[in-house]
Amino acid sequence: MTGDGTTGVAPAGQRDTTAMDLNQGTLVQGAPAVVHETAAIDRGQVPPPPAAAEPLAPRTVEQHLDEILSAVPQPDPIELAVLDAQGLLCAEEVVSQRALPAFDQAALDGYAARALDVEGASFEEPARLAVVGETVAGPSGPSSIGPGMAQKVSAGAMLPAGADVVVPAVWTDQGVVTVAVHAPVESGGYVRRAGDDVAPGTTAVQVGTPIGPAQISLLAAVGRDRVQVRPRPRVAVLSAGSELVDISTPPGPGQVVDVNSYALAAAARDAGAEAYRSGIVPSDRRRMSEVLESQLLRSDLVLVSGTFATEGDTVQEVLAELGQMHFSPVTMLPGPVQAFGRLGRDAVPVICVPGEPVAALVAFEVFVRPAIRLMLGKRQLFRRTVQAIAAEQLLSPLGYRQYLHGQVMRHPDGGYVVEPLGGGDEAMLARMARANCLIVVDEDVTEVAAGGLVTVIPLLLGG
Amino acid sequence: MTGDGTTGVAPAGQRDTTAMDLNQGTLVQGAPAVVHETAAIDRGQVPPPPAAAEPLAPRTVEQHLDEILSAVPQPDPIELAVLDAQGLLCAEEVVSQRALPAFDQAALDGYAARALDVEGASFEEPARLAVVGETVAGPSGPSSIGPGMAQKVSAGAMLPAGADVVVPAVWTDQGVVTVAVHAPVESGGYVRRAGDDVAPGTTAVQVGTPIGPAQISLLAAVGRDRVQVRPRPRVAVLSAGSELVDISTPPGPGQVVDVNSYALAAAARDAGAEAYRSGIVPSDRRRMSEVLESQLLRSDLVLVSGTFATEGDTVQEVLAELGQMHFSPVTMLPGPVQAFGRLGRDAVPVICVPGEPVAALVAFEVFVRPAIRLMLGKRQLFRRTVQAIAAEQLLSPLGYRQYLHGQVMRHPDGGYVVEPLGGGDEAMLARMARANCLIVVDEDVTEVAAGGLVTVIPLLLGG
Repeated sequence: MTGDGTTGVAPAGQRDTTAMDLNQGTLVQGAPAVVHETAAIDRGQVPPPPAAAEPLAPRTVEQHLDEILSAVPQPDPIELAVLDAQGLLCAEEVVSQRALPAFDQAALDGYAARALDVEGASFEEPARLAVVGETVAGPSGPSSIGPGMAQKVSAGAMLPAGADVVVPAVWTDQGVVTVAVHAPVESGGYVRRAGDDVAPGTTAVQVGTPIGPAQISLLAAVGRDRVQVRPRPRVAVLSAGSELVDISTPPGPGQVVDVNSYALAAAARDAGAEAYRSGIVPSDRRRMSEVLESQLLRSDLVLVSGTFATEGDTVQEVLAELGQMHFSPVTMLPGPVQAFGRLGRDAVPVICVPGEPVAALVAFEVFVRPAIRLMLGKRQLFRRTVQAIAAEQLLSPLGYRQYLHGQVMRHPDGGYVVEPLGGGDEAMLARMARANCLIVVDEDVTEVAAGGLVTVIPLLLGG
Repeated sequence: MTGDGTTGVAPAGQRDTTAMDLNQGTLVQGAPAVVHETAAIDRGQVPPPPAAAEPLAPRTVEQHLDEILSAVPQPDPIELAVLDAQGLLCAEEVVSQRALPAFDQAALDGYAARALDVEGASFEEPARLAVVGETVAGPSGPSSIGPGMAQKVSAGAMLPAGADVVVPAVWTDQGVVTVAVHAPVESGGYVRRAGDDVAPGTTAVQVGTPIGPAQISLLAAVGRDRVQVRPRPRVAVLSAGSELVDISTPPGPGQVVDVNSYALAAAARDAGAEAYRSGIVPSDRRRMSEVLESQLLRSDLVLVSGTFATEGDTVQEVLAELGQMHFSPVTMLPGPVQAFGRLGRDAVPVICVPGEPVAALVAFEVFVRPAIRLMLGKRQLFRRTVQAIAAEQLLSPLGYRQYLHGQVMRHPDGGYVVEPLGGGDEAMLARMARANCLIVVDEDVTEVAAGGLVTVIPLLLGG
């Protein structure tokens, strides 16, 4: 899992550059008022030392993401009732045993007849046919018509043998004994032929097709009430931190409410997972270990948020007892420390994200959502990005990929404009709640001028 | 409900034009091969008579939609657990009783100190401070520091009185008795101030805000585990038709499997409703009435699919006993007959859509989805449309709004290209399942040239 060569001591030159430039990034706080203050974003992060320091092992966003995506297993397909399969990917080649429709039938209410007999018919010179019976939709025995005859039919009724058209009722005088037809119908007109929709032995729904209402329609039509799909991964969500209290407990001095087990469970569900909010990890070491082990047994992915120290804490120690867990700073803002490992008997993937709620949801977006989508079998792991015009200047430390919350909107002249949300003094949670996008400033960019282009990830909320 | 003046006999001139042009539209089947055959779409529809006929009362898509949207009630707000509120709109002004954070705290691991004491510090000339204690995140009593002192703190720990900065641990020698600080920190640096995020008495989440992970984060942070929301409307889905058998029953001659109760339940759920698949309406009149009445009692909206005759059938008669139900042809393709009414003691809205599965899902998209979104309180009732270049010529009858399934894709030079799916001989259900959009050809358009612009509604499947 650490075989990508990114662990251990990074080259000194690289470290130095990063460190110096972050420092530079921090120092521009006093710049002119039009500059977007990145200080608020930086404030919550561990900045690298301003000079030489102990050998930390930072990795890039891409390296951490690659490790996660290359190690996440894909759960085995399961069979579900078609309505429960909604939103999932089909995991089998659904071959129809039936013809659809199963029999030649009237497409609308009218008169089953022979095209030859109504050729050239008009309102002035109608074709007159003898009405020899009536068939409605539903179970019925065989019937037939000969030349000069018609049979009254309702939409969905079996076509009598000998007929090759249905004359719409409104094109006739709607006679009971004889009928006057006011317009011709080409052979096959207003008839649904057996097998027109699906011939027996053909594939109705292919492997990998997302199952929506149209696919459910087709599955039901071929008689399938159950279907093999890629299941929703079961994701357990835990919060670690001795400062945490549950939402129903008024926090005392030094305590804060557990926010992340709610927010991350919501985000995991939004990404397509079956999320279980396990809540706050017990602080007692033995009970912590029990809780983590039981979540590993019942989950496809375990998500732990916490403010993990650079030196080990109890959670890190307990995780390490369960398998190899790789904690490292990632060169992103907000950061700081992220972790991934595969723990327990079944090598269940465990992703640790920061404890600060804004950083937790950004890390979810960057690392966890693609992993869940990969487990679902989705082809598109990442959200669509757009290039938008920055409404304000953006400054960002060199060597760090910065994610800023923003509001993106369409520009009247086409394209998009994005405004970063809040300066250094606006609240972070409130800002995140107002955002409709993440602005991404790449590692090698230190400044985006007002009016310059920047990459934006719209976060669809479906308002 | 019928007060919009669209019922009754339409002007003869209008009828004539429509009829003649639909006829014309049908006659172009023999046109060159590049022409997209609309015959397959037309074939399942009731065409108007080729000449004068009985006074039907057709209405436009807009008229039918207006009647539905003006009559659909908005369910009362309910209180839900925050995680169950996901995807719904907040129905209350959530005012925080708390400050967030509740206390001044360290934003990262380091040393709480006074900005004055570390002014001008550098790696070469560090500021040396006496370490007078340590505070970790979690419950703790009051502490304080004086000039020349520092306190070791972890991220989230309460800031001791007297301190106004946290020096990141990596900017120091991480000393235990005394600490050497290698860089200055401006006052307030790496400190989260009480109330920074949310001040007591301010609104955390506003009425009408869609509740996503970020809002759940904010709600949890202010201690709300329940919240008032606009509820998901309960939608009952029924299929009517004597030809229908349940999916588990092999259809005999003249019988077809009930597809629509599955497909429409899936579509209703996709639109945000809590959908209940009630299945096939019993054919016995008394039992039919009982089933419909019980669904009216437990639903916010009842959806019935069926091939409703222009003259009354049992379902129409039973519905008429429960209230005023307005059946009428709508000038759209696929059609033909649509209906709306408010039935039962509570005047529950009932929408009837065609029985043919493709027409049923198109009618859902056009009439039912906006109604469900209105009930959810959404501002955006309709899907976004885009203008796309038609890859083939499209022909459409004058006076009818035609909805064709298509595949829309991005054009390499920008914009979109759309290809209608299937000619006259391709299966309709299979075509619908392959589509990623609906092409809309307006009532007053009879031809869209290849290369011309046409309106497209992308149907997001999230593949």
